[in-house]
Amino acid sequence: VAPVRLSDITARLGGELHGDPALAIDRIGPLEGASAGTLSFLSNPRYRAALQSTGAGCVIVAPDMLDAALARAEGAAAIVADDPYLYFARVTQWWAERTRAPRPSGVHPSAVVEAGATVHTSASIGPFVQVCAGAEVGADVQIGSGCHIGRDAKVGAGSRLAPQVTLGDDCHLGANCIVHSGVVIGADGFGFAPNQGRWEKIEQLGGVRIGSEVEIGANTCIDRGALEHTVIEDGVKLDNLIQIGHNVHIGAHTAIAGCTAVAGSARIGAHCTIAGSVNIVGHIHIAEGTHVAAATLVSRTITTPGRYAGAFPFDDNATWEKNAATLRQLYRLRERLRALEKKTPP
Amino acid sequence: VAPVRLSDITARLGGELHGDPALAIDRIGPLEGASAGTLSFLSNPRYRAALQSTGAGCVIVAPDMLDAALARAEGAAAIVADDPYLYFARVTQWWAERTRAPRPSGVHPSAVVEAGATVHTSASIGPFVQVCAGAEVGADVQIGSGCHIGRDAKVGAGSRLAPQVTLGDDCHLGANCIVHSGVVIGADGFGFAPNQGRWEKIEQLGGVRIGSEVEIGANTCIDRGALEHTVIEDGVKLDNLIQIGHNVHIGAHTAIAGCTAVAGSARIGAHCTIAGSVNIVGHIHIAEGTHVAAATLVSRTITTPGRYAGAFPFDDNATWEKNAATLRQLYRLRERLRALEKKTPP
Amino acid sequence: VAPVRLSDITARLGGELHGDPALAIDRIGPLEGASAGTLSFLSNPRYRAALQSTGAGCVIVAPDMLDAALARAEGAAAIVADDPYLYFARVTQWWAERTRAPRPSGVHPSAVVEAGATVHTSASIGPFVQVCAGAEVGADVQIGSGCHIGRDAKVGAGSRLAPQVTLGDDCHLGANCIVHSGVVIGADGFGFAPNQGRWEKIEQLGGVRIGSEVEIGANTCIDRGALEHTVIEDGVKLDNLIQIGHNVHIGAHTAIAGCTAVAGSARIGAHCTIAGSVNIVGHIHIAEGTHVAAATLVSRTITTPGRYAGAFPFDDNATWEKNAATLRQLYRLRERLRALEKKTPP
Repeated sequence: VAPVRLSDITARLGGELHGDPALAIDRIGPLEGASAGTLSFLSNPRYRAALQSTGAGCVIVAPDMLDAALARAEGAAAIVADDPYLYFARVTQWWAERTRAPRPSGVHPSAVVEAGATVHTSASIGPFVQVCAGAEVGADVQIGSGCHIGRDAKVGAGSRLAPQVTLGDDCHLGANCIVHSGVVIGADGFGFAPNQGRWEKIEQLGGVRIGSEVEIGANTCIDRGALEHTVIEDGVKLDNLIQIGHNVHIGAHTAIAGCTAVAGSARIGAHCTIAGSVNIVGHIHIAEGTHVAAATLVSRTITTPGRYAGAFPFDDNATWEKNAATLRQLYRLRERLRALEKKTPP
Repeated sequence: VAPVRLSDITARLGGELHGDPALAIDRIGPLEGASAGTLSFLSNPRYRAALQSTGAGCVIVAPDMLDAALARAEGAAAIVADDPYLYFARVTQWWAERTRAPRPSGVHPSAVVEAGATVHTSASIGPFVQVCAGAEVGADVQIGSGCHIGRDAKVGAGSRLAPQVTLGDDCHLGANCIVHSGVVIGADGFGFAPNQGRWEKIEQLGGVRIGSEVEIGANTCIDRGALEHTVIEDGVKLDNLIQIGHNVHIGAHTAIAGCTAVAGSARIGAHCTIAGSVNIVGHIHIAEGTHVAAATLVSRTITTPGRYAGAFPFDDNATWEKNAATLRQLYRLRERLRALEKKTPP
Repeated sequence: VAPVRLSDITARLGGELHGDPALAIDRIGPLEGASAGTLSFLSNPRYRAALQSTGAGCVIVAPDMLDAALARAEGAAAIVADDPYLYFARVTQWWAERTRAPRPSGVHPSAVVEAGATVHTSASIGPFVQVCAGAEVGADVQIGSGCHIGRDAKVGAGSRLAPQVTLGDDCHLGANCIVHSGVVIGADGFGFAPNQGRWEKIEQLGGVRIGSEVEIGANTCIDRGALEHTVIEDGVKLDNLIQIGHNVHIGAHTAIAGCTAVAGSARIGAHCTIAGSVNIVGHIHIAEGTHVAAATLVSRTITTPGRYAGAFPFDDNATWEKNAATLRQLYRLRERLRALEKKTPP
C-alpha cells in the first residue's frame, strides 16, 4: 500500500493536525503494536495508558487528550477531532477506497441476464450471476459471483452484493446497501395451517422492502411477508446469521448483532440496539430507542424505552448445578418463606 | 394481477358464498388496510373488532361469524368455511399458482449434468447448477440457479429447490419438498476422536434421508449421519437457520421454528412443535406430541407429551441485575431458609 | 462397496486381531443392527450390554473387553486397540478414502481463474468457481462448485472446500483444512461509529488467518478483522452455523459446537470445548482448557480452566411459569428472608 502524508488525511477529512504534515502513514492500526507509520486513535479515555506506550506515529484524539498525545514522545503527531471514533471511521472508509481495486463495470460473459431485466451500464455483474426477468439493477451497483437476482427484484444505486447472495422475486433493496455473502432475502415465511395432523402451506405472497444505507451480514435471512411486505427501514445494520421472520418491521437506524432471531410480525422501533443471540417472539412491539442485552428472550411488548436483559448468570458448573436445582423449586421456597413469615411475630 | 370473481374461488375451493358472486378480487390481504377488491379472513375470534372496521370486499369466516361478517357493511360478502384458516391457506396456494410464472422445463445450457446423472425431461434445471454422476432428478422438479446436486443424490418428483441449495452426495429428498436458498444437506456431522490433545476426524459415512412434503428454510443445515442416516420424516417443516446434527431422527409432521439447534443422535417424535432458538442436546428423545417454548434448553429426555419451557424471564436491566445476582447464591438462600425453619416452632 | 478382509484392516491400521483374518467386512456400523459383515466398536463400557447382543462380525475393543467380545458368539472376531474410539476414527478415514471417488485434478472449463491467480496443477477446481487475481491455490486442493476465492486469498495444500464456500479477499486458509458448504470467511466485521442517530461504517481492513487441519461446518461465518486479522489456530474444529466476530482469536485444537456466537475481539484459549448455542461476549478471554456447557452466556473473562454452565433448567410449562414468576422478584425474597433472620433469635 502506498503511504500517504498526514496532511493528505486532514486535507480530505478535516481535523486539527499537530506535528509533521509530511509524516508518511502506511497503516491504520490499534495503539498496541503500532509503528512510526501507523495512524491510530484513542476514543475511550479508559485506554489512556495505551496512549503513553504506543509507537504510533500519529494518534487521533479528542481535544482534551491533545497534551497527553503530544507529550508521549519527541515529535509525536496528533490529529484533534471532536469525535475521534467517527473520524477514525472516516479514515477507514477513505483507506478502503484508496486500497481496494474496483470491480470493472459491465456484465461478466458467464452471467445470465434474462430478457426484460434492466442492468445499468455502470453496474458490475460478476461471473455466474443470474438476473431474472423484470429485475432492475441500478447505477454503480456491484454484484459478486454466484448471486441470484429474482424476478422483479430491485437493487438500488450504489449497492454492493458480495458473492452468493440470493435476492428473491419481488424483493427491493435501496441505495448504497451492503449485503454480505450467503444472505437470503425473500425466502418464504414460516406459515402453515394445521389440517388433521398435517401442515398446509400458506403461500407467502408478500415481498421484502429494504431501505437505503442498510447493511446485512453474512448468511442472514430476511423472509418475505405472508400477505404484505417485510420492511427494513433506512440505515438498519444487521450482523451475521440473523433470522428476520415474515412481516417483521424494523425501524430506521436500528442495529442488531449476530445470531438474533426476530419472529414473524414483530415490530422493532427505530434507533434500537439488539445484542447477539437475542430471541424476539412474534407479534410484539419494541419501543423506539430500546436496548436489549445478549441472549435475552423478549417475550412481550416493550413500551418504555430503556435497557432490558434476561440471561441466566453463568457460573462454574458445580455452583450452577446447585443454583439451577434450587431454581426448579423456587416457588416452593417462596411458599415456605411465606409460612415462616406468618409464624414470626412482627 | 388479473382479478378473479368470488364465484371462481368457491367453484374451485368450495365454501358457502354469501354476497355478489361477480365481485372482483384482486388481492388477498389482512383485515386492516383492506379495500373493496380484497379477500380477507377471520380465524381468531379475538380479532372480531377488526371485522367490523375492515374495508375488505369479502371475508372468509367460520359459520358462527357469518352474521357479523354480513352486518359490517351494506353489500358485504363472506365465504363460510368450517376452518377459515385452512381455507385461507388454500386460497393462497391457488393465488400463487395463478400468479407465479413457471420455470421452463429443461436444462439451462450453462448447467453441468455429469455423465451417469438422470434428469427427468419435465424437470427445470437453472443456470450454474451441477448435477453429479449417479444423481436422479425426478419429474416436475425445479432446481434454481447455483444449486449443487451431489453424487448419487435423489430429488423426488415435484420438489422445488430455490437457488444456491447444496444437496450432498448420497442424500435423498422425497417428493413435493420445498428447499429454500442456502440450505446445506449432507455436510459432515461433527465427530472427532480425541488424540493427545488433537482431534482425529471420524469420517461421516452415512447419508441423509428426507421424506415427502418436507419444507426446509433458508440457510438451514442437515448433517449426514456418522454411520447410518440422518432421517427427516414426511411432512416435517423446518424454518430458517436450523441446525440438525448427525443421526438425528425427526418424526412426521413435526414443525421447528428458526435458529433451533438439534444435536447429534437426538430423536424427536412426530407431531411436535419446537419454537425458535431452542437447543436440544444430543442423544435424547422427545415424545410424540411435545411442544417446546422458545429459547429452551432441552437437556434430558421428555417421555410425557405436553408443554415445556425454560427461558429466563426478561426484565428491565436493573431488576434483572438484582435478580440475577441473587440467583447466583440461590442455594445458600435455601440453606438459610432451612436454618430458620429449624429454629421456628411449628 | 467392495468388502475387505479383517487382515487388510489390521495390516493397515495395526491392532491385535482375534478371529478369522479372512472375514469379509462390507460395512462399518454401530453394534445395534449389525450383521456378519459389519465392523463395529465399543469405546464406552456403559454399552457393554449391546456387545452381548450384537450381530457384528468383528468388534474393536479395549484390552479389558476382549474376553467379552470373543465370548458373545461362536467364531466372533475382535480387534484389540488401546483406544478403540481412535482406532474406529481411523477405520472411517480409510473407509472414506477407499469408497469416495476422487475429483479429477484440473480446472473445470466453466471456472473463472483471473489473471494473476495461481492454481497448482494437482488442484481440482469445480464448475462455476471464481478464483480472483492474486489468489493462490495449493497442491491437491479440492474446490467444489460455485466457490468464490477472493483476491490475494490463499488455500493451503490438501485443503478441501465443499460447494458454495466464500473465501474473501486477503483471507488465508492453511493446509489440510475442510470447509463445508455455505461457509463465509472474510465478510466485514460488525463495526460502526454512531453519528447523530445514524451509523457510520468502519471499513474492516484486516483479514482472516486460519491455520492447518482446521474444519469449518456448514454456513459458519468468520468475519475479517477491523484493523488486524481474525485468527483461528491449527486444529480448531468449528461446527455448523457458528458466528466468529472480527478480531476473535481461537487457540489451537479448540472445538466449538453448532450455533455458538463469539463476539468481536474475544480470545478463546487452546484446547477448549464450547458446546452448542453458547454466546461469548466481546473482548473477554477464556482460559486454555475451559469447557462451556450448552446455551451458556459467557459474559465475563474466565481465568480458571474448568467447567462452566449457565442455562435455565427447563421444566413442564406450568412449573416453569411458577418458578419464573418467582424469579422475577427473587431479590425481594432475599430481603424478606433477611428480615426474618433479624427477628429470629440465634
